[in-house]
Amino acid sequence: MNYPNGKKKNGSVSNRRPYRFGNRGMTLEEDINDTNTYYLATKKAVIHKKPTPVQIVRVNYPKRSAAVITEAYFKQASTTDYNGVYREKYIDFEAKETKNKTLFPLANIHDHQIEHMKAVVEQGGISFMIIRFSTLDETYFFLAEKLFKHWNVKLNGGRKSIPYKTIQQQGYLIPFQYKARVDYLAIIDKLYF
Amino acid sequence: MNYPNGKKKNGSVSNRRPYRFGNRGMTLEEDINDTNTYYLATKKAVIHKKPTPVQIVRVNYPKRSAAVITEAYFKQASTTDYNGVYREKYIDFEAKETKNKTLFPLANIHDHQIEHMKAVVEQGGISFMIIRFSTLDETYFFLAEKLFKHWNVKLNGGRKSIPYKTIQQQGYLIPFQYKARVDYLAIIDKLYF
Repeated sequence: MNYPNGKKKNGSVSNRRPYRFGNRGMTLEEDINDTNTYYLATKKAVIHKKPTPVQIVRVNYPKRSAAVITEAYFKQASTTDYNGVYREKYIDFEAKETKNKTLFPLANIHDHQIEHMKAVVEQGGISFMIIRFSTLDETYFFLAEKLFKHWNVKLNGGRKSIPYKTIQQQGYLIPFQYKARVDYLAIIDKLYF
Repeated sequence: MNYPNGKKKNGSVSNRRPYRFGNRGMTLEEDINDTNTYYLATKKAVIHKKPTPVQIVRVNYPKRSAAVITEAYFKQASTTDYNGVYREKYIDFEAKETKNKTLFPLANIHDHQIEHMKAVVEQGGISFMIIRFSTLDETYFFLAEKLFKHWNVKLNGGRKSIPYKTIQQQGYLIPFQYKARVDYLAIIDKLYF
């Protein structure tokens, strides 16, 4: 565990939800989008979620109004969901939450996302996953390089998940801040600057 | 003009379409996507086009088949279309083509795209436009920093376009390569490495 468990910034101690009190009901995606909006507004970083990939099949163009897509399908993403630039560095990550309390299932990730993250790391970009255990209300920063090892174990017929304990040990608990609910740049600052 | 006009790599000389012979009918987007695929396959760079942003309103979930989006609308993009990483650098650009032979109309670009490009440059990323004069069959690399100046002129009530001659002078003609039809990294190599 890279952050003192249960310790809040003001020094008080709580037991189960140290960083996310008062934040119930927000999805991880909403929290990250809010965080990115805050980073952008404060000129800290330029990081966006990519649009959902959609295969458009049919479009109607009614007179005097906007084009309507009337048939389309969800496509599988070929990359990760978030990317951008922070202090000259390329940032690229995927975010997933699980209700499981003891492990993170690797079925949440696709082959081509791992391939993409490997390509990013080879190009000198910073790649990672943000993993939320929503029942525990804990969100972790997990470097792509560590993820690849667990992925290889799975590919070789080994376990298909990462134990919660391992994520605690190999990852970094992301602090909850009022304005940056998933302040992942705080971890990047520690690791890279 | 930053490349000798009409000069092909093998030394022969043609008059009007020096770099794009045999490539008629491909849109700029197709050419860039092919180029990015080639860059990815050769491990030169990891650069992707973002999906078209769509506002999804209604989705049907038929039994035993894929979800169908039955009502959706095109949204205006809040960023540029392409981004990624090349030799540790963050790359971010927009691509536009015009049939006009004497100028590039700035109406092709939106305010928030300029804002995005400014934020990228402030963060130390490399931002630019790829501008194709499709009738002339010439494609230019035009740095964001140069673009901002023309944008300011427009905002102050001045001209609403960039003359072709100015793009020739301030931009860089992108070479056509068989496998990298819009080899924009060749320009980045010259400017940054």
